[in-house]
Amino acid sequence: MRIGMVGLGRMGAGMAGRLTSHGHEVVVHDRDPERVARSAGVDGTIPAASLYEVTTKLPPPRVVWLMLPAGGPTRDVIDTLAGLLSKGDVLVDGGSSRWTDSVERAARLAEEGINFVDAGTSGGVWGRTHGYCLMVGADREVYARLTPVLEALAPPGGSARVGPPGAGHYAKMVHNGIEYALLQAYAEGFELLDASTLDLDLAAVAEVWRHGSVIRSWLLDLAAEVLRRDPEVEQVSAVVEDSGEGRWTVETAVDAGVAIPAITLALFSRFASRTPDAFGHRLVNALRHGFGGHESGP
Amino acid sequence: MRIGMVGLGRMGAGMAGRLTSHGHEVVVHDRDPERVARSAGVDGTIPAASLYEVTTKLPPPRVVWLMLPAGGPTRDVIDTLAGLLSKGDVLVDGGSSRWTDSVERAARLAEEGINFVDAGTSGGVWGRTHGYCLMVGADREVYARLTPVLEALAPPGGSARVGPPGAGHYAKMVHNGIEYALLQAYAEGFELLDASTLDLDLAAVAEVWRHGSVIRSWLLDLAAEVLRRDPEVEQVSAVVEDSGEGRWTVETAVDAGVAIPAITLALFSRFASRTPDAFGHRLVNALRHGFGGHESGP
Repeated sequence: MRIGMVGLGRMGAGMAGRLTSHGHEVVVHDRDPERVARSAGVDGTIPAASLYEVTTKLPPPRVVWLMLPAGGPTRDVIDTLAGLLSKGDVLVDGGSSRWTDSVERAARLAEEGINFVDAGTSGGVWGRTHGYCLMVGADREVYARLTPVLEALAPPGGSARVGPPGAGHYAKMVHNGIEYALLQAYAEGFELLDASTLDLDLAAVAEVWRHGSVIRSWLLDLAAEVLRRDPEVEQVSAVVEDSGEGRWTVETAVDAGVAIPAITLALFSRFASRTPDAFGHRLVNALRHGFGGHESGP
Repeated sequence: MRIGMVGLGRMGAGMAGRLTSHGHEVVVHDRDPERVARSAGVDGTIPAASLYEVTTKLPPPRVVWLMLPAGGPTRDVIDTLAGLLSKGDVLVDGGSSRWTDSVERAARLAEEGINFVDAGTSGGVWGRTHGYCLMVGADREVYARLTPVLEALAPPGGSARVGPPGAGHYAKMVHNGIEYALLQAYAEGFELLDASTLDLDLAAVAEVWRHGSVIRSWLLDLAAEVLRRDPEVEQVSAVVEDSGEGRWTVETAVDAGVAIPAITLALFSRFASRTPDAFGHRLVNALRHGFGGHESGP
C-alpha cells in the first residue's frame, strides 16, 4: 500500500527503508529538505515538499505515519495535519509522545472522523535490519487496516494492538521504565563483580551468562560486547542522561498510587550521576562534622 | 571420563543424566538410598552406597562433583571427602555455597594437594534439557582437566573459568542479585500496566515485547507465558521468599562499600511482601493520627 512518512531522522528513515524494501510506496517528508532528498533515491519512495503535498500524494483513506521528536514537533505537525486530513484517514504517531497527549489527540481527532493511532516503538538502531517492536493503541478495525504496514515494520510477532488509542504510548513508557531498572540491575551487579578482590574476568562472566542462565537478555548481550572491547568501561562517561519517559513513568505511578521503587531509583540514580559535588552530600558532611567532628567537614 | 556425583536432588540427578547421555560414566551417591536406586537404572550410572565407595569406584586422579544444599550438607560432605581424597584429586562444589566459604575451603584443601573448584550453576529446571550455565572458579590447569565434563553439562558457550577458586560462587551470587532486581523491574512495570485505566492487554504487551524490543529476555519469555495463562496472576501467592543469595549479595556489597540500591530494594521488597500487617506501617498511622488527626489512626 501507499503510506506517508513524516520525519526522516534515524528512526523515520529506517522505517521508510523497511517499508519500501517490503514493496510499499512511501510518500516521505521532513522539514529538512536534505533528508527528503537523501531518501528520495530509493525505489518506491515519493518525495513531498510539504505536509499538504503528503496528503495530496496519498489516496484516501490516507495513512500518515509520524516519526518525530515528542512534544512541540509532534504537536505542531498533528495540528497542521488535522486541517488537511479527511474523515476516515488514519494518523499514526510512531514517536515517543506522552500517553496522556495521545489520549487527548485521539479524542480531538475523532471529532473530525480522523482515526488516531499511537505506535510505541522499540528497537533503536537495530530496528532497520531486525524489525521494530510496535506497541499499538488503536481501534480494532483501524489496527486491522494497518496490518500490511505493521508486518513490514515489525519482526514476526513484533506488532500488537495492546489497547485503545493511548495504550500504545502507555506501554512504550512502561517499557522504558522497565529498561531503566534493568540497566540499573546489570550495572550494580557488574560493579560488584568489579569490586571483588578475586580478580574476576568480567567479560567471561557476561559471556557465560548469555548461555543458559536465568538472567540472559538482549541487554546482557550488549553488556558482553562492551566488556569484551573495554573490560573497565573506561572509554565512556559516568554521567547518564534521561530522555523523559522515565520521568513520565514515575509521574504516572504517583498519579495511580502504584509503588515502582526500583524504576524510580534507577531514574534518580541517573540524576545523581550528574551531580558529583552534590549539595546533599556536602550537607551530610557538614552535619557529621557538626555533631561528631568527623573528617571531610567544613 | 568417569566422575562422581554426590547429591541426587533435582539438579544433581539432572546433571548425572546429562553426563551419562554424553557418554560419561557417573558414580552416583546420595544419603537417600532411594534416589541412588532411581538413578542407577540408567546406562553409564554406577551406584555407590557411601562417600567412601564413591572414592573407591573412581580412578585417580578423581573428580567428584557435589550438588548439595549450601551450608551444613555441603560442609559435612566436604569435611568427609577431605579425608578420603588424595593429592591431585578434584572436588567440585556445584551447589550455591557462600563464596567466602569456597575461598576458605579451597585454601584448606590445597594444603592436602586436593584441587577445589566452585561451579556456580544457573538454569533451574530447564538445565537438564537446555544445559546449565556454569560460572567456574578454578586454577587454569584444573579447569582444563574438567573440560569434557563441563562441555557435557553446559550448552555451547555456557561454561567459563571466571577466576580463581571462590570466583565461581561470587559470580553466581551476583547473578542471583541481578535476578532479584530484574524480577522487581518487570514486576513494577506490569503492575503499572495493570493499574492503567486504558484497559491494556498485558498478555499482548508481554508477547510483543519479546520480539525486537530492548527489554526482551528469558525472564520476559516466562512472564509472557504466565500472563497468557493467567492474565491477573490470580493463581499465585503475593508472598515472596528468598533463598539466601540475595542477602549475601547485599552483605558483600556492604563489606566492599559498593552501592547496589536496586538489588537491595528488590530483596527488601520480598521481606515487605511477608509482612502485610507491618509494624512500621502501623507506626506511621499512629504518628499521622498523633500530629494531624488523619484517618486509620488508633
